Amino acid sequence: MAGKKVLIVYAHQEPRSFNGSLKRVAVEELNRQGCAVTVSDLYAMDFEPRATRKDITGVLCNPDFFRYGVEAYEACKKRSLTSDIIDEQKKVQEADLVIFQFPLYWFSVPAILKGWMDRVLCQGFAFDVPGFYDSGFLKDKLALLSLTTGGTAEMYMKTGVSGDFRYFLWPLQHGTLHFCGFKILAPQISFAPEIASEEERKEMVASWAQRLKTIWKEEPILCTPPWYFGQ
Amino acid sequence: MAGKKVLIVYAHQEPRSFNGSLKRVAVEELNRQGCAVTVSDLYAMDFEPRATRKDITGVLCNPDFFRYGVEAYEACKKRSLTSDIIDEQKKVQEADLVIFQFPLYWFSVPAILKGWMDRVLCQGFAFDVPGFYDSGFLKDKLALLSLTTGGTAEMYMKTGVSGDFRYFLWPLQHGTLHFCGFKILAPQISFAPEIASEEERKEMVASWAQRLKTIWKEEPILCTPPWYFGQ
Repeated sequence: MAGKKVLIVYAHQEPRSFNGSLKRVAVEELNRQGCAVTVSDLYAMDFEPRATRKDITGVLCNPDFFRYGVEAYEACKKRSLTSDIIDEQKKVQEADLVIFQFPLYWFSVPAILKGWMDRVLCQGFAFDVPGFYDSGFLKDKLALLSLTTGGTAEMYMKTGVSGDFRYFLWPLQHGTLHFCGFKILAPQISFAPEIASEEERKEMVASWAQRLKTIWKEEPILCTPPWYFGQ
Repeated sequence: MAGKKVLIVYAHQEPRSFNGSLKRVAVEELNRQGCAVTVSDLYAMDFEPRATRKDITGVLCNPDFFRYGVEAYEACKKRSLTSDIIDEQKKVQEADLVIFQFPLYWFSVPAILKGWMDRVLCQGFAFDVPGFYDSGFLKDKLALLSLTTGGTAEMYMKTGVSGDFRYFLWPLQHGTLHFCGFKILAPQISFAPEIASEEERKEMVASWAQRLKTIWKEEPILCTPPWYFGQ
């Protein structure tokens, strides 16, 4: 939709990968709509995943006893976080929709993207206490996980060996994004592209591009317990 | 138990932290039993979390199209992974029990520890296809997650705002450790030490040390669906 701003946080090492294709068609389709699209290409940026005292540029509250959460919170209020964090926070702040594009690593995001979440979504920026879940600071924004899996859709059914795919989405959709207030759009899961035919891969990419045409009409999903686990 | 080997993968920036105390008493108690204890202190090691082509020291299978999983698998077979990965794999290989000691970041492990999982537990070392879950390569080993939370135990009840703590353990206990074959011991969760009294903190540390006295008599927990989610 013209005028909307989208941030794509992208975590794949290879531009020609399937994840790269999904990212590329998203940029193309959203640009076509007149959206302003920004991409954070984490590997290309060599984004720092480790949460350390280097993230605080000013004087520490307690140099003798380092508590990352406390120091990051204070530094956020004083605008003394390191510039790579502030840059990402600005991109998030400006976005109406944040899309995370990544291959599933161990039922979760790759470490480089986990580091983005650990460092960028700090207290004072994304939430406070109180000021989380439905009152998280990013509550006027949408988030969407677009991911690829190694395992097949059958493995990620409720009775499959890896359990319902919603189970592994829980820490990301509820524990992280919903905690920060984001409204969550349905995940886009491209199952097992590595063992799919070229035809099937093209269909998966096309269906993502197709979905994005009407993305602004979608309603957020519920991702709170006990509904989430069907209980 | 005398003769047993334990690896503690430890992810906290501050030696004097509560996580540091839990790590320290574990080393002390296990040494007292005559166990050989190794600690991987990830922040002190400045452990690399990013999965990149730097992890492969030899010639790539396909230099024009980088696929991390494929390249790491081949490099593992050819013993051409980078030395920091090989060092960690040797520690895992020798261990009877691996304890992960960390503060919960976004319902999961800190990025530096996620990177340890992404890079160390590669195909060919920890699993193969086939050769995962009950037939994962680390099936004769035990794993235990010892973690601290920001939220209280009430928040992590089934009806709490953050849902049952077992939900966030799923990707770690089942999707990662069980996938590699590990038998899983019950998690050690120290809830909200930051808002506990000094007395309560001491009790939590003491109860962990106490549990370790009989750790070798514990039976692994079940962590497969649908039991896991109470369905």
